[in-house]
Amino acid sequence: MGKLLIVGTVAFDAIESPFGKTDKILGGAGTFIGLAASKFEVDLGLVSVVGDDFPQAYLDILTNKNINIDGVEIVKGGKTFFWSGRYHNDMNTRDTLVTELNTLADFNPKVPDAYADAEIVMLGNLHPGIQLSVIHQMKKRPKLIILDTMNFWMDNSLEELLTVIKEIDVITINDEEARQLTNEYSLVKAAEKIHRMGPKYVVIKKGEHGALLFHDKHIFFAPALPLEEVFDPTGAGDTFAGGFAGYLAATAHISFENMKNAVIHGSNLASFCVEKFGTERMQTVSQQEIEKRLHQFKTLTQFNIELP
Amino acid sequence: MGKLLIVGTVAFDAIESPFGKTDKILGGAGTFIGLAASKFEVDLGLVSVVGDDFPQAYLDILTNKNINIDGVEIVKGGKTFFWSGRYHNDMNTRDTLVTELNTLADFNPKVPDAYADAEIVMLGNLHPGIQLSVIHQMKKRPKLIILDTMNFWMDNSLEELLTVIKEIDVITINDEEARQLTNEYSLVKAAEKIHRMGPKYVVIKKGEHGALLFHDKHIFFAPALPLEEVFDPTGAGDTFAGGFAGYLAATAHISFENMKNAVIHGSNLASFCVEKFGTERMQTVSQQEIEKRLHQFKTLTQFNIELP
Repeated sequence: MGKLLIVGTVAFDAIESPFGKTDKILGGAGTFIGLAASKFEVDLGLVSVVGDDFPQAYLDILTNKNINIDGVEIVKGGKTFFWSGRYHNDMNTRDTLVTELNTLADFNPKVPDAYADAEIVMLGNLHPGIQLSVIHQMKKRPKLIILDTMNFWMDNSLEELLTVIKEIDVITINDEEARQLTNEYSLVKAAEKIHRMGPKYVVIKKGEHGALLFHDKHIFFAPALPLEEVFDPTGAGDTFAGGFAGYLAATAHISFENMKNAVIHGSNLASFCVEKFGTERMQTVSQQEIEKRLHQFKTLTQFNIELP
Repeated sequence: MGKLLIVGTVAFDAIESPFGKTDKILGGAGTFIGLAASKFEVDLGLVSVVGDDFPQAYLDILTNKNINIDGVEIVKGGKTFFWSGRYHNDMNTRDTLVTELNTLADFNPKVPDAYADAEIVMLGNLHPGIQLSVIHQMKKRPKLIILDTMNFWMDNSLEELLTVIKEIDVITINDEEARQLTNEYSLVKAAEKIHRMGPKYVVIKKGEHGALLFHDKHIFFAPALPLEEVFDPTGAGDTFAGGFAGYLAATAHISFENMKNAVIHGSNLASFCVEKFGTERMQTVSQQEIEKRLHQFKTLTQFNIELP
């Protein structure tokens, strides 16, 4: 069983959308990545930080999915990271209403010894300095380091971000962020520039328009499953990354061909994530439902043109 | 050899883009549809109208591709339809600078006898009354009637548009137009509503984000080929429709499975169309280049997940 180390936020989210409104619910990139990766046969360790206001019931949700939380620090007297946002009618754009860093502000990640030899490391969206610190704590170079990031770090910590990007193998980033990072409108050109920054594999996430995987001159595309209703997009990108990393850790085979499958598995899991608020759907989705929807992905994309 | 009747504008276009500017060049939906369909083994007839200002050299471009232009009326003393537009930096949005209907204003299409028994009819974007008149001139119900339209007719001739939509089998429409026509944001729901208006097959074009084919509960998706540079998107949607119709006419087999292939062929040809101004690339592209790029479409979309 492959070992996957995940670093990412465990948080409270409060979400408003045209479909309703939530109180503070379980959220955070590390949470969504972990829940998605737990759908595969893999030894999962999570590194994160919360305050002692964080309910045991939420931690139990993670441990019940066999996610090892020895690396989740609980800060006494501290408050857990809180994010609140409101989605517009098109569900593609959102306003951030509240960001309270709380314990995240001084987060100093500690990789448990048992996971310092993980074959795959998935660095969720965090300050690039934190991401770099995790890489440096690994006993040996992991077979694959995957990094997710966002425009906030390009605006505020570009130099550190470029330093960590140099160290990794796969970057997952959305289309607008890829354009911002490279100053190229064409995603093909943007991916080429990002290759030259370090990562051998570039995954560009386009939300409802799917995801592109670039490697050398090769490109693979996975659509998002067309849905009747998108209820809450929060965590979809992290769920995609978690499915991608979890599948690769479970199959223990690093190649462009296997990453195609990983991208499909990630897109498949993300299609469930958006069906309910927060992590609700990811907690309940069954292996049977996941498999059924993989069949839908095949119908959706596979064709039969004979070529010489 | 299947017979395909195409109805659509033959026009002058003048295009401005970040890459440059053209004088009046060959354009029009009928032109792009015809050039794309001519890549397949099919007996092509075009119904359209031009003024006597239209150069013989432009007509020769069509006849050289074995497009029968007996149905292209040349109005003495009339001027050819002229459209001019300017693309913005993202190449996804454009402003119309000039629309001179000229001879198109009084266009009364006449289907040549030799094409009144065509198995497939492709109705390019035109006034729905003109599209309906063509359907009524057919000797017997064609095996397949495909219709392309746009928001302009929804705004100005909705009732006539709904009348012609009731008569057809396949509609091709872009995502924003599908939303406008149905008042549904979700394209899955929009396609269901359009099904209920008449068409058994609904193709929703999303430009650089690909195209969706809906039939009953089945969905197929074809991405646009990611390109380093999009030079001029003019005619890409018509080229897509022409490739779709041409492939179906050549293979003479109407099914969801075969339409998947048709959607891929349409997307493939559209990827060439945008590489140069106007029809330039569609005039020169070779069968070898087309085939090579079909291989790229396979690499781009086909994966290998074993499912029970």
